[in-house]
Amino acid sequence: MTQSREEFEARLRKIGAERYHDLHSCHDLLHSGGCTPDQVRAWVINRYYYQHSIPMKDAAFMSRVEDPALRRAWRSRIEDHDGTDENEGGIRRWLRLAEAVGLDPDYVASRQGILPGTIFAVDAYVRYVREKTLLEAVASSLTELFAPKIHADRIKGLLKNYDFADDSALSYFRKRLTEAPKDVAFGLGWVLDHADTAEKQDAAAAALIFKTNVLWSQLDALWGAYVEPARIPPGAWIPGEGLLLQRAS
Amino acid sequence: MTQSREEFEARLRKIGAERYHDLHSCHDLLHSGGCTPDQVRAWVINRYYYQHSIPMKDAAFMSRVEDPALRRAWRSRIEDHDGTDENEGGIRRWLRLAEAVGLDPDYVASRQGILPGTIFAVDAYVRYVREKTLLEAVASSLTELFAPKIHADRIKGLLKNYDFADDSALSYFRKRLTEAPKDVAFGLGWVLDHADTAEKQDAAAAALIFKTNVLWSQLDALWGAYVEPARIPPGAWIPGEGLLLQRAS
Repeated sequence: MTQSREEFEARLRKIGAERYHDLHSCHDLLHSGGCTPDQVRAWVINRYYYQHSIPMKDAAFMSRVEDPALRRAWRSRIEDHDGTDENEGGIRRWLRLAEAVGLDPDYVASRQGILPGTIFAVDAYVRYVREKTLLEAVASSLTELFAPKIHADRIKGLLKNYDFADDSALSYFRKRLTEAPKDVAFGLGWVLDHADTAEKQDAAAAALIFKTNVLWSQLDALWGAYVEPARIPPGAWIPGEGLLLQRAS
Repeated sequence: MTQSREEFEARLRKIGAERYHDLHSCHDLLHSGGCTPDQVRAWVINRYYYQHSIPMKDAAFMSRVEDPALRRAWRSRIEDHDGTDENEGGIRRWLRLAEAVGLDPDYVASRQGILPGTIFAVDAYVRYVREKTLLEAVASSLTELFAPKIHADRIKGLLKNYDFADDSALSYFRKRLTEAPKDVAFGLGWVLDHADTAEKQDAAAAALIFKTNVLWSQLDALWGAYVEPARIPPGAWIPGEGLLLQRAS
C-alpha cells in the first residue's frame, strides 16, 4: 500500500537511524581520538576515492536527465566538489586535509594504494546512478539527510583529539554543513513527490539501503586493513608511503 | 619493451604467486579445520554469489565476441556452471555443499544476507568483463591458473577436518579440478597470442591483478564480518538464519 508523504519520509529516516555509517565502530575510534596517525592517513587516502568519484556520479545522473530544471538544480553538486572561481571545491579541501595529516597531496590525488574494497563499493555507486531509474538515483543521494550530524561530530572530535586538526584542515567538513542540507532538501522533496506508488516507494527505500551499504562497506574495508590486527591486502597503502617528508627528500 | 611469450607467462604466474587468495588467512583457517560451522556457512552463502554471477560474466563476454570459434570455445564455461542434460552444473553442486553444511539451499539461492562487500566485488568483475577489451576480459579469467592447487588443498583439508565433508558435498571442487585446467589452457594461450605489444601485456597483467583483488576482497569482507571479533554489517546473514531445520519446522 502506498504510504503517505509523512509515513514514507519517516521510513527513509528510519533507514538512516539503523544503517548510516555513523553507527560503524570506525567512526567512534576516529572521533574519540583512538586512531593512530597512520589510521587517520589510511582513512584520508581511501575516502579521497569517494570524493574523486562523486562529481562523476553526479555527471552520470545529469547525462540521463532530460529536464533542464532538474539538471540546473543538480549542477551545484558538481560545482561544490570540483570548485568554481570563488570556491576551491570539496576535492581541493580534502587534499588540504591530506596535507594536514602529513600526506603528500599529489600521492593522494594519484589514487595509488586505495583498498580494492573501497574502489568496488564506490564504483558500484557510480554505476548504480548511471543504470537505475532517476528516482533510485536521487533516493541513493539521501544519505545526506544524516550527514550534518556526523560532520558536526567529526569537527568537534577531530579538533579536540588530534594535533593536525585546525580550521584549514577541517574546512571540507565545515563547508559540507551548509552544502549538504541544501542538496538534500531538494533531493528529499523530489523523492517524496515522485515516489507516488508503493512500488516506487519500495524502490526508493532499497536505493537508500544500497547507499548505506556503499558507505558502510568502505569502513569495513578500512577497519579490516588498518585496525588491529591489521591485514593490509596486496597493493594497498603501507604506512610510511606517500608522506610529505618523502616528497622533500 | 614487449616481453617474450615465456617472460610474459612468467610475469602472469608471479602475480598469482604474490596475490592469489590462497595466501589469505581465511583459507588457512578454513582448510585447517579452524572455522566454526557458522563461519563455514557464511563462506558458503557469500561464495554462492560468485558462483551465481560467473555464467552472467561469461555471457557478457560472449555478447561482445564476434568470432564464432571464440564463442564456441567459451561456451563450455556456462555449461559447466549452469549444467546440461548430463551434468548438473557447478551452481547445483554448490547448493549441495550448502545443504551439507546445514543450510537451506533455497535460502542460499535467494541471495539474501550476502555481504555488500561480496556483491560490490563480484559485480565489479561482471562489469569489468562487460566493459573492458576482450584481452583484458580473458586475462582476468586467468586466476584459474592458480585454482587447481587451492581446490586440491580444500578437498583434503575439508575431508580431514569437518564432519559434513564427503564426496557429494565436495563434488563442486572435485569437478573444478578437471574443468579449470581445460578453460585456462585455452585462456592462457589466447592471452599469450594476443598480448603482442608491451601496452597490451601491461593491460593483461593489470586485468589479472584486478581479478586477484576481486577474490581477495571477498575474503576480507567475510573475515571482517564473521571472524573474531565479528562485526556483521546491517542486513547481512546472522548465524541461525536460513538453516535446514527452520525449513522443516
